[in-house]
Amino acid sequence: MTILHDSVWRANVQSKTVSVNEMPQSWRKLGGRALIARILLDEDVAACDPMGPFNKLIWSVGLLVGHKVSSCDRISLGGKSPLTGGIKESNAGGSTGLLLSHLGIRAFILEGEPRSDQWQILRIDDKGGAFESAKDIVGLGVYDASEKLMQRYGNKVGITLIGPGGEMGMYSAGVQNLDKDGVASRICARGGLGAVMGAKRIKAIVIDAANGEKPPLDSPSLFKAARKHYTEKLLAHPQTKSFTDYGTAAMAAICNGFGALPTRNFSQGQFEHVEAIGGETMRELLLERGGDSDTSHACMSGCIIRCSNCFASTTGELIVSPVEFETIGLVGSNLGIDNLDDIARLNWEINDLGLDTIEVGAALGVAAEGGLLSFGDAERAMELLGEIRSGTTLGKVLGNGVVATGKSLNVKRVAAVKGQAMSAYDPRAIKGNGVTYATSPQGADHTCGNCIRAEIDHLSPEGQVEVSRDAQIKMAGYDTLGACLFGGFGFASAPGSLMDLVNGRYGWGVDENVLHDLGKITLKLEIEFNLAAGFGPTDNRLPEWMTTEKLPPFNTVFDVPNEELDSIFDW
Amino acid sequence: MTILHDSVWRANVQSKTVSVNEMPQSWRKLGGRALIARILLDEDVAACDPMGPFNKLIWSVGLLVGHKVSSCDRISLGGKSPLTGGIKESNAGGSTGLLLSHLGIRAFILEGEPRSDQWQILRIDDKGGAFESAKDIVGLGVYDASEKLMQRYGNKVGITLIGPGGEMGMYSAGVQNLDKDGVASRICARGGLGAVMGAKRIKAIVIDAANGEKPPLDSPSLFKAARKHYTEKLLAHPQTKSFTDYGTAAMAAICNGFGALPTRNFSQGQFEHVEAIGGETMRELLLERGGDSDTSHACMSGCIIRCSNCFASTTGELIVSPVEFETIGLVGSNLGIDNLDDIARLNWEINDLGLDTIEVGAALGVAAEGGLLSFGDAERAMELLGEIRSGTTLGKVLGNGVVATGKSLNVKRVAAVKGQAMSAYDPRAIKGNGVTYATSPQGADHTCGNCIRAEIDHLSPEGQVEVSRDAQIKMAGYDTLGACLFGGFGFASAPGSLMDLVNGRYGWGVDENVLHDLGKITLKLEIEFNLAAGFGPTDNRLPEWMTTEKLPPFNTVFDVPNEELDSIFDW
Repeated sequence: MTILHDSVWRANVQSKTVSVNEMPQSWRKLGGRALIARILLDEDVAACDPMGPFNKLIWSVGLLVGHKVSSCDRISLGGKSPLTGGIKESNAGGSTGLLLSHLGIRAFILEGEPRSDQWQILRIDDKGGAFESAKDIVGLGVYDASEKLMQRYGNKVGITLIGPGGEMGMYSAGVQNLDKDGVASRICARGGLGAVMGAKRIKAIVIDAANGEKPPLDSPSLFKAARKHYTEKLLAHPQTKSFTDYGTAAMAAICNGFGALPTRNFSQGQFEHVEAIGGETMRELLLERGGDSDTSHACMSGCIIRCSNCFASTTGELIVSPVEFETIGLVGSNLGIDNLDDIARLNWEINDLGLDTIEVGAALGVAAEGGLLSFGDAERAMELLGEIRSGTTLGKVLGNGVVATGKSLNVKRVAAVKGQAMSAYDPRAIKGNGVTYATSPQGADHTCGNCIRAEIDHLSPEGQVEVSRDAQIKMAGYDTLGACLFGGFGFASAPGSLMDLVNGRYGWGVDENVLHDLGKITLKLEIEFNLAAGFGPTDNRLPEWMTTEKLPPFNTVFDVPNEELDSIFDW
Repeated sequence: MTILHDSVWRANVQSKTVSVNEMPQSWRKLGGRALIARILLDEDVAACDPMGPFNKLIWSVGLLVGHKVSSCDRISLGGKSPLTGGIKESNAGGSTGLLLSHLGIRAFILEGEPRSDQWQILRIDDKGGAFESAKDIVGLGVYDASEKLMQRYGNKVGITLIGPGGEMGMYSAGVQNLDKDGVASRICARGGLGAVMGAKRIKAIVIDAANGEKPPLDSPSLFKAARKHYTEKLLAHPQTKSFTDYGTAAMAAICNGFGALPTRNFSQGQFEHVEAIGGETMRELLLERGGDSDTSHACMSGCIIRCSNCFASTTGELIVSPVEFETIGLVGSNLGIDNLDDIARLNWEINDLGLDTIEVGAALGVAAEGGLLSFGDAERAMELLGEIRSGTTLGKVLGNGVVATGKSLNVKRVAAVKGQAMSAYDPRAIKGNGVTYATSPQGADHTCGNCIRAEIDHLSPEGQVEVSRDAQIKMAGYDTLGACLFGGFGFASAPGSLMDLVNGRYGWGVDENVLHDLGKITLKLEIEFNLAAGFGPTDNRLPEWMTTEKLPPFNTVFDVPNEELDSIFDW
């Protein structure tokens, strides 16, 4: 069959049909995160019950996806979040974005209400899609389930799937994707979208793009020249080398230095054992252990940064891939755990459950404060993950995230905005991130505008709104292109390359402001969605206790004025 | 000491001081529910964390309270609700209102953040207030705790206190008050205000009004004549006789007849065993059993309706007082329990925990659907209340109410608005109550505008907004006066009596519209509060599933249009 490029696919779980359509005109210049917002608005999703029949789950391919441009093949997943009640886009690397684009898909929309509780697999290829029984994989963790699926469908397929957490409708459930090596470890983690997939009773979507093809290029020469320019600059950027060697784990020492590393449920900003869980230790450990270890692993084909890693045991067998800084922060220092092996094992378990390590780590931190485990007790933390897997009431509470856990245990120190846990940057010591947490339509999420690299006094309230605004606009732009934040180092050093890539692909004649323009469009749509979903200015606040409880060692509170927060999107 | 009438008392748990002040001019013409809204707005409570230092808990005395006018001595309790996140007023009978008024108090404001976790009793009398240790009563249920307090302070005192649920910060916790016989059974139940009292670490307030006096009357003759007129008409009203004989339990058969009696977690509107749990059966049972039984019990001194009851066992010993229709609906039919003895025992247990029977009954219904008990299994329901008392994680989830329970168990059929459980009227078959649930600033609460007696086709969407609007305005007025809804039968049959009572007490020269005027003022203030707390039109909706899932036997959904809901307060 001929591939219809830049198409919209709809899979209806009620009628068990899959349709392929051209994009409406008004969607054509959008991709990834922006397209999700446009579709959700156009299809009137804002006021619905996120777990009900009217929510939609959308795999949205970024505008640059499909050509293995380094760091530019990410997949955006979106819908109305059961965790925040607002709009949600959560993106990941792996092969899902690339393979969908090779089937011509810009947006894949899963919709409707299942007629029964029988779990389905949805298999798609160049000829369309078909629903098949998932009864032999339901209940399995994502690693086993994806292995079984690859045995059935071959190891060239892409898979996007949920774990037991998503099946149980837990609000910390994400959707895992195969990485380039066929490991189900690239998770669209945040906002509980795995629970939405669970509510649709779809365990996995298997993507067979064997008969697919790359998306067309309007001007191959322009595209290729821009790609070369960008790749060279990215490769030469000093930050790329750091990410290649240390991955995101390098952030542990930096964040600790700023006094912003969440420690023992956000009660401290520095962890006395930070060295033991940081990037340098990890690199040394992996180089020493060898075997399955890899200090520089690419999550997507063609990525030259390779910030991911493979973490092996002392005997060289893989424990988990990757161990990221966010997990080190939330599952490590935030739980008082000072051992990378423990963190890696907890990480694997949370991955296999198909849950978000940030949300679950934060929930465990609150559980520790509520007396359910001692800080530093990795064994007990693992037991609590066992409760989640068993679906006990306690497990379900933890699996529903930090706010549900705080409510249940009557713990006040809950670090969340719009119902979603903060990532591994305490906003009292990196106030730009506090502005992002507070004001992002996505809830507390560093990926929507991380300000830690801004040249600013992070402890001062001054100027943070401007820094966050700029970061939020840029990130919304990258998320619309399918580009990884780290690709941004290359785009920044290769002026015009981004514009040329877009024009080389589509021939739209966009100018140098394309990133900002896409970012602004995206944020505007997302704010419109949240307004229709019932959000207002009072939702754009950090928790009250963070404005009164001082964070050691720098003893600051979050004090960016509300009026400034409220003006952030008046550009 | 001389009593300063119509005064505002403030007890600060941080400084452990109690102050007595004159009312600001702008508060003077308000009482009860309206005064709560005015104070919470003026003192900028709307945006705060309900469980944090900036929330305030206000015992607000209705305008007519203090003279034992039948059914007019209710106490309103208010603050920002941890359950709904919005404004909350919850009122009760008993002696609290009367005794506070005899100390001259119009509003008693509990505020501040406790310096330690040591529980306190606050004792107030005509000379002021003092904090004392509560260590010998902390952890006790409200019955034992209040007994101990009466042993210590004498049996003439009033007591307003929390149970273990409030101590544990559960969002279904209310605040119990002694009835006229010294039994801690008159609960300001809804919205989790007991958790707010718990957050202030106050177990009980003991009110010694031995040296108090009735509030002054501007015109004793006008007041007394109006009271006589009202009392005669109330006594003569046929509805009064029904309430005296059958209490609110008579509603079970009526509501079942409309197909609106919540049955098995709101999955049906009629209960096949309704007769066994209705008013007639209860009356016969109590008359037959004798002993402590009482079919016509007054919760407040001077009430001539006496709709309350004392429910005794087969051997004539009191099980609980009272058994109300709401409890019969939520703890009976909603759990498939067809036995009044079982309902009475569960009722006692929930009372003793200091929790709201509506919220807990609804949570147990969801728990049943989630597989934690079988419908009809009262023994298992009692075990689950044991989990609440023990403070297990499951118990805390249940104690946090129906929404928390639904989230934890991934049950979709959750009957709640603004986070608060619906009362015992399924809004798909009594659509006026659906409008009230959806639009009341208080969340789903029948006491804010019960439409079951309206002469309207309850199954039709037509005209329900008008019916609910009128009921909501009237109820907000009654709640401001300290009057019981059932007193309304008297006021309606004795035109001018309400106006004359207000003028006889205060000399304000109000006209016959006083009830509506007070009601409208109240609603306007409450809507303003909720707006500042972040509520918008999308919060004024029934749950989505109630608009799609048909309720047997009449197979209707809730279909009052959103535009009509949104226009309800455009008067």
